[in-house]
Amino acid sequence: MKFTITFFLAASIAVSVLSFLFAAWLYRWVKKQPSSNRRIAEVGQLIRNGANTFLTKEYTVLAKFAGVAALLIFTFLPSPVWQGNLVDNLVMALSYICGTIFSAVAGVVGIQIATIANVKTAEAAQSGIKPSFMSGFRGGAVMGMAVVGGTLLGVSLVMLITNNTTALLGFSFGASSLALFAKAGGGIFTKTADISADLVGKVELGIPEDDPRNPAVIADNVGDNVGDVAGMGADLFDSNVASMAAALVIAASLDKVDGGSANISLVFCYAAAGLFASIIGVATARMGKHGNPTKALNSSTYVTTAIFGLLTAAATWAFQFEWRIWGASIVGLLVGVVIGIASDYFTDDTKKPVHQVAKASESGPAFTILSGISYGFISTLPAMIGIAISALAAYKLCDPIGPGYAMFGISMAAVGMLSIVGMIISNDAYGPIVDNARGLAEMGNLGDEVLDITDALDSAGNTVKAVTKGFAIGAAGLTVIALLGAFISQVNDAAAELGLKGLTGFDVMNPIVFFGLLIGAAVPAVFSAMLMLGVDRNAQRMVSEIHRQFREIAGLKEGKEGVVPEYDKCIEIATYGALKELIPAGLVTIILTIIVGFIGGVQAIGGFLCGNIVSGLLLALFMSNAGGLWDNSKKYIESGNNGGKGSDAHKAAVVGDTVGDPFKDTAGPSINTQITVVSLIASLMSTLFLTLSLIR
Amino acid sequence: MKFTITFFLAASIAVSVLSFLFAAWLYRWVKKQPSSNRRIAEVGQLIRNGANTFLTKEYTVLAKFAGVAALLIFTFLPSPVWQGNLVDNLVMALSYICGTIFSAVAGVVGIQIATIANVKTAEAAQSGIKPSFMSGFRGGAVMGMAVVGGTLLGVSLVMLITNNTTALLGFSFGASSLALFAKAGGGIFTKTADISADLVGKVELGIPEDDPRNPAVIADNVGDNVGDVAGMGADLFDSNVASMAAALVIAASLDKVDGGSANISLVFCYAAAGLFASIIGVATARMGKHGNPTKALNSSTYVTTAIFGLLTAAATWAFQFEWRIWGASIVGLLVGVVIGIASDYFTDDTKKPVHQVAKASESGPAFTILSGISYGFISTLPAMIGIAISALAAYKLCDPIGPGYAMFGISMAAVGMLSIVGMIISNDAYGPIVDNARGLAEMGNLGDEVLDITDALDSAGNTVKAVTKGFAIGAAGLTVIALLGAFISQVNDAAAELGLKGLTGFDVMNPIVFFGLLIGAAVPAVFSAMLMLGVDRNAQRMVSEIHRQFREIAGLKEGKEGVVPEYDKCIEIATYGALKELIPAGLVTIILTIIVGFIGGVQAIGGFLCGNIVSGLLLALFMSNAGGLWDNSKKYIESGNNGGKGSDAHKAAVVGDTVGDPFKDTAGPSINTQITVVSLIASLMSTLFLTLSLIR
Repeated sequence: MKFTITFFLAASIAVSVLSFLFAAWLYRWVKKQPSSNRRIAEVGQLIRNGANTFLTKEYTVLAKFAGVAALLIFTFLPSPVWQGNLVDNLVMALSYICGTIFSAVAGVVGIQIATIANVKTAEAAQSGIKPSFMSGFRGGAVMGMAVVGGTLLGVSLVMLITNNTTALLGFSFGASSLALFAKAGGGIFTKTADISADLVGKVELGIPEDDPRNPAVIADNVGDNVGDVAGMGADLFDSNVASMAAALVIAASLDKVDGGSANISLVFCYAAAGLFASIIGVATARMGKHGNPTKALNSSTYVTTAIFGLLTAAATWAFQFEWRIWGASIVGLLVGVVIGIASDYFTDDTKKPVHQVAKASESGPAFTILSGISYGFISTLPAMIGIAISALAAYKLCDPIGPGYAMFGISMAAVGMLSIVGMIISNDAYGPIVDNARGLAEMGNLGDEVLDITDALDSAGNTVKAVTKGFAIGAAGLTVIALLGAFISQVNDAAAELGLKGLTGFDVMNPIVFFGLLIGAAVPAVFSAMLMLGVDRNAQRMVSEIHRQFREIAGLKEGKEGVVPEYDKCIEIATYGALKELIPAGLVTIILTIIVGFIGGVQAIGGFLCGNIVSGLLLALFMSNAGGLWDNSKKYIESGNNGGKGSDAHKAAVVGDTVGDPFKDTAGPSINTQITVVSLIASLMSTLFLTLSLIR
Repeated sequence: MKFTITFFLAASIAVSVLSFLFAAWLYRWVKKQPSSNRRIAEVGQLIRNGANTFLTKEYTVLAKFAGVAALLIFTFLPSPVWQGNLVDNLVMALSYICGTIFSAVAGVVGIQIATIANVKTAEAAQSGIKPSFMSGFRGGAVMGMAVVGGTLLGVSLVMLITNNTTALLGFSFGASSLALFAKAGGGIFTKTADISADLVGKVELGIPEDDPRNPAVIADNVGDNVGDVAGMGADLFDSNVASMAAALVIAASLDKVDGGSANISLVFCYAAAGLFASIIGVATARMGKHGNPTKALNSSTYVTTAIFGLLTAAATWAFQFEWRIWGASIVGLLVGVVIGIASDYFTDDTKKPVHQVAKASESGPAFTILSGISYGFISTLPAMIGIAISALAAYKLCDPIGPGYAMFGISMAAVGMLSIVGMIISNDAYGPIVDNARGLAEMGNLGDEVLDITDALDSAGNTVKAVTKGFAIGAAGLTVIALLGAFISQVNDAAAELGLKGLTGFDVMNPIVFFGLLIGAAVPAVFSAMLMLGVDRNAQRMVSEIHRQFREIAGLKEGKEGVVPEYDKCIEIATYGALKELIPAGLVTIILTIIVGFIGGVQAIGGFLCGNIVSGLLLALFMSNAGGLWDNSKKYIESGNNGGKGSDAHKAAVVGDTVGDPFKDTAGPSINTQITVVSLIASLMSTLFLTLSLIR
């Protein structure tokens, strides 16, 4: 069968509408679940209000930023407006704005459902683990369906209306620039609250986690939502859009040469298949007889994977796509699983690294840190090899099709890895929902049995996170390689128009490339350092505030009936601090990119992107895995090993966990977005870098 | 004037002989200094014996390793011996062995003088800071002169005898492979002892540093010598040889095209000028009126720099060398100073980062670690920019001379940065000597006034180390870029012989290059992690032994007259542990390089080297600077800030310092050597990778 591109766009839009309908059904299902506990409802409302307050403030700031950015884009991109490309520039600016709006909407949807699902999950835990799991999982799935549906809808609409892949890069840049700040801001908020609450509550006063006397406890629960739901959603929306945009830019240039629209059609077809597979995966997710939530989550992931493989094979056969490209996307999917399993080894509490770090903790916190950093470093090797092999395999598979197809293969491996992103987001959003539910159960005095259930659900969330995180980082790695390919396409288009010499690649023996390479490699380190320092400063502010409340509010420490801490003060500190700290880190990254581009031109930027990718992947893997390792080592000790709770080893492990928190929830995951943003800026500004750089 | 290459070789040999004579004079001067305290002599002898024991054991193990390596080299390099290159292979194997012997001799010389100078420095401190400084400085200078003289002599002799730059790479590989293990082994030894001694002595029992009751105290002082003197000497010998070898390989290929020997002559001429400048710098070093040891050390460094600039300018004029190349080496020198100053900012206790980390320590160890890691990450940026700019500037300066000269310019920038390596080593060896002297003064009960003097000398050593370390890392960066150039030369020579297509560069858009790039980037992380885990494991063993002694030896804890701990048991643990832990880390690195080469061939190796350089520089800078920062933050608190000694902030800072120790003295500095080793393996095995790889 041969269909026009319009068929595939229409099909994509249909599938995304289906996913929205499904999300709406899930939303209503969750909302219909019973809830009766007044205390839980109250606290749930506090969390909901706190999260909405933060989002409103954050989006107000970001709207200003996006407005300025849109104005700059309108003026300068793809080329200065006074050179007479008014319509092009307008399309670009509007695409950018659409990207930011879609991203923001995804965040808002996530928060709305997560702050309902947390209450329902807590209450459902009273009737057992199965209903509780379903509330948490379906709540997360609303977010998953909305984000992936939004991606496919947004990209399809931009293509349908503009039929211009550069506009698509603008849309993607809108998603990325918002994600950069949403992820960083949410990450700073959540870790500020988490660390401060733990430090004063658990460490200084010895009161339990989620104790309602702790003034930071609501902020902590709000943080789970704004950091792990809204921030994570924006982040994965961004990765997903970027991988599609990169694939489509390359597909478009191939189709231009080949005639027809086979490659663009293929990208939409595979993306729609991925979303459809995720819908089925979510719809069929059930907890088995033995009530093991980890198995339930993982098996729905594997179901999705298998359906995606079958659907795309059928489509490839039916629409006569290239089988080699199908192979590349399956390679991506498989390597994603392998990377996930490797990451899991380093953070799983039944494996050696966690045990070793727990043992090292017996000698004191310095050894917790040293061993955690060491295993974190080692954990980068399998994932780096995995990404390297998948890129090489995809390239070699698709190279025989024709010139340019090798890079298309890499971009489709990324699309393949992200095909199950709907499941990834569902699982990831499930985590903070059940974490919140645990807090609510504690504050609502639902008893130890309920707490045990929420704890089991929570721990399952942490475990599956390791696997899905492998997919996310691997896909980010492949996507940015593909974006490098997209960058070359953009430069060559611009060069052809201007009658300049185009690019074929970036030779590291060219000192201008090397110049960019070295500076690009330092950027993720500086970016993550600035975020961590932000958390550090902000947590110090909040700790002082908590101390003040315990000092000044009579009866608070003793838990006198009716004495309530001023929760909103802590939320306020976390909010303003996060907004204050996130801007400089993002700006430094963007400005350094622009400076390097204007000094060394497109060659320097090629090196810059490459250095950025390599060191960014390395640091993201290191930080995510070390953070997870410390977290689980602490939990491993708490479950009675190496001296158990309260022992010196436990105290040392708490230090490791505190260091690991901003590693894994603020800096590590933000690096993915940072790389994407830099890559997109490079592509969008390629004409300017080509014509106006100091060294050419 | 025009001279033959023999003239410059003869001149180089003459200058190196002069440096040996000067070293001998310094050695006798130090030995002649008075010493009378029996207790100090005894302890000094214990340290000397311990160091010699370790060196003997280490070199016995390494001799076996080097023997096997020499046999492999003879069999396979530059190409398999059965293909009829018996003489070439023999020359290669012999050059390799010479390299290892020169490196080992440098280590032995260093230990002999350092274990005399420490006693003399301690005793001289009784007559004031000036004589004490002179003993320490001239002791260090013996090592400096011996290492640089050895480099120049060794390289000159290999060139004179073989007239073959590939043999030079063999010599360099000998130096590197020994340095890899000497630095790593010494680094594990010293930090094992240091951490264990501090942990049990200072933290658990609250007895002072260097208290003779502590069973690990002698091992700690031995560690200063085997790690910071012998290991560091081997490391800088390696860098120095590698920078000359890279420059000479490129120079030889240029001379082949141009005819004559202008470029080879220039390399020897500049290297001889650097050594001569260092001799004058050392000879004229005096402490000024105000008795400020930091000023004395820095001013002799600057004197050397200025003399080098003048001498090379005169030589360039007299021998009609290219001025542009002179410019490149001066750029290297200047950027070295700038990088040093930037590193200094992040570790200086009068600057913001140290104060911030000290302040963060008030909130607990997690914040000490987080802020230290963050500033360590940020500190990489100026140095990476510095290396990037110097490489670019050297390239642009020399590119107009002719094809191939650009890369030669970069290699000469590295030679320029390392021209003052004699001073760097003198200053670096001064550090452990005065550190030892402090310990001896404590154990010999020389009183607080003497301790104040040795403390002042010690602190000056730490400060100048920051500046000289900047040179060392910068030079390593440029050297490995030049080695990448040397690798291309080697590949092209081999390709021309075999009638294959040569290389022009490495395009990162080539997935085989990218494949190597990603894996190469992970290697320094894995290598340093394995070393740190080695320190960790080894320290745990030694802590148990110290506990055992305090438990089992009656009267030891109370300091009863005549009760002596079993110092040699601790030395033994450190020795065997270091040898056991260093081999796997080195082997993993070497084997991964070979695997990547046989899978992906020369293109993959190009990417591998590039990734290795980029991530290696990043991690080396991060670890060195973070380690120095934690060390100085602890000292800053100890000097009465943020609560002073014994406060919670101090305890947190001690955790930071313990983490920082293996960062800055084991893992960080070993990465330089690791990069060099990998680069040299690549060059040496280029023919094999070219002809036998899986993917071509």
